[in-house]
Amino acid sequence: MVYLTRRERFSAAHRLYHPGLSEEENERVFGPCANPNYHGHNYELFVTVRGEPDPQTGLIMNLKELSQLIRREVIEYLDHRNLNEEVPFLQGIVPSCENVAKAIFHRLQPLLHGCALHSVKLVETENNFAEYFGTEAEGIR
Amino acid sequence: MVYLTRRERFSAAHRLYHPGLSEEENERVFGPCANPNYHGHNYELFVTVRGEPDPQTGLIMNLKELSQLIRREVIEYLDHRNLNEEVPFLQGIVPSCENVAKAIFHRLQPLLHGCALHSVKLVETENNFAEYFGTEAEGIR
Amino acid sequence: MVYLTRRERFSAAHRLYHPGLSEEENERVFGPCANPNYHGHNYELFVTVRGEPDPQTGLIMNLKELSQLIRREVIEYLDHRNLNEEVPFLQGIVPSCENVAKAIFHRLQPLLHGCALHSVKLVETENNFAEYFGTEAEGIR
Amino acid sequence: MVYLTRRERFSAAHRLYHPGLSEEENERVFGPCANPNYHGHNYELFVTVRGEPDPQTGLIMNLKELSQLIRREVIEYLDHRNLNEEVPFLQGIVPSCENVAKAIFHRLQPLLHGCALHSVKLVETENNFAEYFGTEAEGIR
Amino acid sequence: MVYLTRRERFSAAHRLYHPGLSEEENERVFGPCANPNYHGHNYELFVTVRGEPDPQTGLIMNLKELSQLIRREVIEYLDHRNLNEEVPFLQGIVPSCENVAKAIFHRLQPLLHGCALHSVKLVETENNFAEYFGTEAEGIR
Amino acid sequence: MVYLTRRERFSAAHRLYHPGLSEEENERVFGPCANPNYHGHNYELFVTVRGEPDPQTGLIMNLKELSQLIRREVIEYLDHRNLNEEVPFLQGIVPSCENVAKAIFHRLQPLLHGCALHSVKLVETENNFAEYFGTEAEGIR
Repeated sequence: MVYLTRRERFSAAHRLYHPGLSEEENERVFGPCANPNYHGHNYELFVTVRGEPDPQTGLIMNLKELSQLIRREVIEYLDHRNLNEEVPFLQGIVPSCENVAKAIFHRLQPLLHGCALHSVKLVETENNFAEYFGTEAEGIR
Repeated sequence: MVYLTRRERFSAAHRLYHPGLSEEENERVFGPCANPNYHGHNYELFVTVRGEPDPQTGLIMNLKELSQLIRREVIEYLDHRNLNEEVPFLQGIVPSCENVAKAIFHRLQPLLHGCALHSVKLVETENNFAEYFGTEAEGIR
Repeated sequence: MVYLTRRERFSAAHRLYHPGLSEEENERVFGPCANPNYHGHNYELFVTVRGEPDPQTGLIMNLKELSQLIRREVIEYLDHRNLNEEVPFLQGIVPSCENVAKAIFHRLQPLLHGCALHSVKLVETENNFAEYFGTEAEGIR
Repeated sequence: MVYLTRRERFSAAHRLYHPGLSEEENERVFGPCANPNYHGHNYELFVTVRGEPDPQTGLIMNLKELSQLIRREVIEYLDHRNLNEEVPFLQGIVPSCENVAKAIFHRLQPLLHGCALHSVKLVETENNFAEYFGTEAEGIR
Repeated sequence: MVYLTRRERFSAAHRLYHPGLSEEENERVFGPCANPNYHGHNYELFVTVRGEPDPQTGLIMNLKELSQLIRREVIEYLDHRNLNEEVPFLQGIVPSCENVAKAIFHRLQPLLHGCALHSVKLVETENNFAEYFGTEAEGIR
Repeated sequence: MVYLTRRERFSAAHRLYHPGLSEEENERVFGPCANPNYHGHNYELFVTVRGEPDPQTGLIMNLKELSQLIRREVIEYLDHRNLNEEVPFLQGIVPSCENVAKAIFHRLQPLLHGCALHSVKLVETENNFAEYFGTEAEGIR
């Protein structure tokens, strides 16, 4: 079993805010991250797949195809976007680093064939990142 | 003459958009960067001062004081903010990387004493940055 | 289960030296790292916690609180310090990258509530780092 | 159990090409990576060992010795080399990131004493890397 | 005057070798870099233009257009290529970091309109890079 | 004129302290950097030379020779050392980033032949660096 990782990037606006909480509660929990005018990040997304390299080609998966899949299914929806307002697969959740990593995992997981999605790592700043490996049913590490 | 640089960081939302241009014109010039819902970046700000190290202390300027000055006068206004909507010293300009670098230079330049502001470099993404050295009157390099 | 990581940094002096070994033995085992006048590093510390994101806030743990905890309990004791001479929780051990990572893990582990400490990764130089995941009793990965 | 990692680097030429496939097939599977005139990369190699730090020295393994082992057994054969033409332990395989990581693991694994080889991570570009942890017989994680 | 920089990347094979020198001379001057089977690098290319930001748009030059220009005129010819064998604008010169930086400068300089090419910086490895600012006739800094 | 840069690294202990100042004065000016037990850094040193590439070899200077010169004359004296106590060419000065950069420039400048020393950049942490270009007599940029 070899693990292969592709990095893609997107720049997006967001705020940490839950409509089910009062303004004061949002402010208390999320601090400046709740700013109603938004802030933003350069996100780095690391998608790791695992599998046996094909005995002939030596590849788990064609990295160009992996890149195209991530761009078409994820980056296209997130880059130069507002994560609270414009992303169908993030509706109804606070776009925290944890939640966005999980949502990207669940979006990509059924689309991989011939190898398994191992993890999604989402780097929000040089100091903060979240990593998700799926549930046991999906094949946790 | 020695050049001393301090890096500070801020995360902000913005859009490239000029109210004096039509929506179509904004879209044509700025493309996805004109998204009305904003996008955002982790900005890296490099402030360079120049001067002669003090013969006794060996310092051009105390780096802690330089850091505090940048944080109080710049980062406090930009971090977790919307560059189009919330920053007094960016009003009336498109918050392009070029314009924001210039504005930060002009904000910091009169506040430095004992050494001169040499340049402001603003990194918007790992692929894009702008650098400003002031006008001749301010002491261009 | 999502894994969330916070990076903090400290700059410290140290030497690799065990008082129970002779000077020659220290020199033989540790080479230039045993220099009695010390050397030093910019350490990068990556603290990873794991847990289920809160269904409402989307957070495993508030990153600001995680940062404050690490700074108060670890960075405050290590930054601009001598790891051999000044750190109560490093007394009696050689401050190798391995040992310091373990000591930081054991210091932070009992202080986390609502999520578990997963790992401590300590980067000593761009070429060397150590990672510790605790013992089984503490919940090894 | 602590995990200790050493980074080493090498610059090499390669092409993705399997002699058992036709030119068209190689071109179809590998695209520009099959260029018969080769291309190349600055590879970063991360070798991770695991073990209990020695109670006296605090070390899992002497990092200088680990570095020397990797340089003598791996870097010496790969740096400023052509991975398709000149490396005995890569003969007969496509030098994909996956295959080279595996080959380096199998080359180093029997040479470590006192601690176990945990993983080999090979970074081909800032966007692509492969990681190998061995088979269960070798002590998979 | 503001300076705006765009980074692009390419992976290429090369060798340092001058056909006008004997094999022994090439070997003596260039050492392992003269390997007839080639080696390679991930090159980072930083192209800096200078100009006055447009008073309305705030841009010196549209970064997307700058990126497209560099990709069409430079990256397309260098990425996944052999710098000794396949690049028309590198024929007849040793593809040293210095020479390739100069050649890229001279290729891009006449194609920029509305702003001036300030410099080309070419990073060959994390330890080596060359930077070229043109001749006085072209407007040296 | 092309500019060529070589990066080398060293890890050292230091404190900011001037024996001509009282303890209180040192503490007031330098804060925690004055800690009598020292702290330390991983320093990155960027040495830039300028010259015309040799028409045949394409080189300003052989990078291996530049690296060897820096290691022999600078790194050998600074790596795994205490900058206050052990470095002949830093005696009598506060080892601030500014002063150390200047001292390295003056040490290397007379040793270069066939090309000129352009600058020495010394990176103390990811947030702080100093750069020195010499005096006019030495050929300031």
